Amino acid sequence: MYKENITEKFRQLQDRITTALELTDGKALFEEDNWLRDGGGGGRSRVTSNGNIIEKGGVQFSAVQGVLPDKIKSKLQVTEANFFATGVSLIIHPKNPHVPIVHMNVRYFELEDGTFWFGGGIDLTPIYIDKEEARNFHLNLKEVCDRHHPDFYFKFKKWADDYFYLPFREETRGVGGIFFDRLNENNGLSKEQIFAFVMDVGNLFAPLYCQIMAKNANQSFSEKEKDWQLHRRGRYVEFNLVLDKGTKFGLDTKGRTESILVSMPPEVKWSYQYPIDEGSKEKKTLDLLKKDIDWISSIEHFSANKILS
Amino acid sequence: MYKENITEKFRQLQDRITTALELTDGKALFEEDNWLRDGGGGGRSRVTSNGNIIEKGGVQFSAVQGVLPDKIKSKLQVTEANFFATGVSLIIHPKNPHVPIVHMNVRYFELEDGTFWFGGGIDLTPIYIDKEEARNFHLNLKEVCDRHHPDFYFKFKKWADDYFYLPFREETRGVGGIFFDRLNENNGLSKEQIFAFVMDVGNLFAPLYCQIMAKNANQSFSEKEKDWQLHRRGRYVEFNLVLDKGTKFGLDTKGRTESILVSMPPEVKWSYQYPIDEGSKEKKTLDLLKKDIDWISSIEHFSANKILS
Repeated sequence: MYKENITEKFRQLQDRITTALELTDGKALFEEDNWLRDGGGGGRSRVTSNGNIIEKGGVQFSAVQGVLPDKIKSKLQVTEANFFATGVSLIIHPKNPHVPIVHMNVRYFELEDGTFWFGGGIDLTPIYIDKEEARNFHLNLKEVCDRHHPDFYFKFKKWADDYFYLPFREETRGVGGIFFDRLNENNGLSKEQIFAFVMDVGNLFAPLYCQIMAKNANQSFSEKEKDWQLHRRGRYVEFNLVLDKGTKFGLDTKGRTESILVSMPPEVKWSYQYPIDEGSKEKKTLDLLKKDIDWISSIEHFSANKILS
Repeated sequence: MYKENITEKFRQLQDRITTALELTDGKALFEEDNWLRDGGGGGRSRVTSNGNIIEKGGVQFSAVQGVLPDKIKSKLQVTEANFFATGVSLIIHPKNPHVPIVHMNVRYFELEDGTFWFGGGIDLTPIYIDKEEARNFHLNLKEVCDRHHPDFYFKFKKWADDYFYLPFREETRGVGGIFFDRLNENNGLSKEQIFAFVMDVGNLFAPLYCQIMAKNANQSFSEKEKDWQLHRRGRYVEFNLVLDKGTKFGLDTKGRTESILVSMPPEVKWSYQYPIDEGSKEKKTLDLLKKDIDWISSIEHFSANKILS
C-alpha cells in the first residue's frame, strides 16, 4: 500500500463524487483549479455555485509533501519532519433549507520514518432536523463501520459528537455522523484493511447524500425557513473558523486560503438574540442539537433506506 | 484612581456614544440588555439594527470580576488570580458601503495584588478606501495621542497595523488606527494620566465616526458596491473569529456569547475567488490594505478636518 496508490484512489474518489453531485443537481458544474504548493505537491480544487440544488460546493483533492515546522511536530508528537499528506475534503451548501449542509473528509498522512495514519468522517447539518433522515444517515454509516470493525461506529459516532460541538453555543453542529483520526495498525487492522474502510466511507458519501438531496430539493420553503437557514449557516462559520482543526492547520501553515475557505457558506446572517418561539420547528431542531443522541435506536423505528447492503 | 471611578466613567462613555450614534442615525435606537456573569459582575449590552445608517451595531459595557483560570494566568504571565476588568467595546456595521465599519474598545484590568493595565484602540474598515478620509481619521488619532505622549501615535499605529492583519489573506483589515495593550506606569505616565489618555480615545470616537457617517450615508451605491461590501464583511468575520484575541478570550472563558458575537455583521457573503478587475475601485482598495502606510504624510496633503483642537 504505497502512498501513490492511496493518492490515486483519492483522486478517483473526487471524480466519482463530483460526477454524482453534478448528475443529481442537474445544473451544477464543478470548475477545476489545479494548484501547486510552495513547499511541495499541490491539489485539484473543484468548486461549483448556483446549481439547481447546490448553492455553493467545494470538493478538494490535495497531495502535498514537505517539512513539518517544529510547532506542528510537537503538536503531532512526532520527531520526523518529512511528511506526505493526501486527502479529499468537501462541504456542500444547498439552496433549499430542507436539504442539509454536509461535510466529508478522508485523509492519509505519512512520515519518512514509516509512521502513518488515516483520518476522516462524514457529518450532516440539517437546518431542520428530520429524525427519520438522521436515523437513516446514521444507519448507513453504522453499516459501513460494522463491516470493518465492531467498535468503529460507536467510537467514531461519539468522536463526531465531541468534535462537531460549539461549546460557546452549547450546540452540536448538526446530527453528527462519524469522525476518526490517527487510525493505524494499533486497532488490529492492517494498513490495507484500514484503507479499505476509509475508501468505503468515501464511497458511501455520494449515494447517501445524493439521495438526501433528491428527496428534499423539491420541497417548497418559506421566507422564514430561508432566514433560519442563513442564521444556521452562521453557526457553521463559527465552527469552521473558531474550532475546526483542519481549517486552523491550513491557515496556520499557509495553505491555499481560497481552497480552505471555500467551506464558507455563500450567504450568511447573524442577528442578536435570534427569536425562537416555543413549540416552533426551529425550537424542535435546537432541542436536538445535543451530544450523545442515539439516532438509530432512541427514536421510533422507521424502515431505513439502506444504501449499501 | 479607584476601579469604581474607571467603571463609572466607562459606563458614562457608553451612554455618550449610544446617544451620539442614535442622533446621527436619526432612526436607530439601542435596546439594552443587562446581564450578570456567573463568576461575578455583569454588563450592559446595547444593540441596534435597521437604522437609517446603521444596519447593525453593538456598544457593550461590562465590569466583571472573578478568578483567572491557570491557563489565562500563564498566558498573561501573572501569578495573582483575583481579577477585575471593565471596558467599553463597539462595532458598527453600516448599510451603505460608503460608510466604513468601525471598532472601538477601551478596557481596564486589575489584579488584587495591585497590578493593572489599560488597553484599547480604534480602527476603521472602509469598504472602499477614501485616502482623504483615512488621513483625517489618522490625524485626529495622532492629535489625541500627541497630547499625552510623543511616542504613542507611531507606536500604537504600528501596533494596529500588526494586530488588524489577516496573514492568510495578506491583507490588513482596513486602514488601521491605533491599538494598545498593557499600558501602565512603565511608560512614565501616572495611572491618572494613562486613564486620561484612554478616556480621550474613548471620547474621540463619537465625533470622529459620526462625522464619517453623516458625510457618506447619503451617497448612492450600486448593487456591485453592496455585493463587495457583503464580501468584505466576510473578511471582518474571518478576522474576528480566527484572529481577534478579545473574541477568543471571551469565547474561551464562557463569556456571554450573544454579546461577544454581536460583532458579527448582519449579512455576509463568501464567493470562491471573488473576481477583481484591474483598475477597478475594488482593486484600488485591495492595494491599500497594507501595513505601514503613512496615511498622514504619504498621500497628497488635504486640509484635515480636525475634531478636537
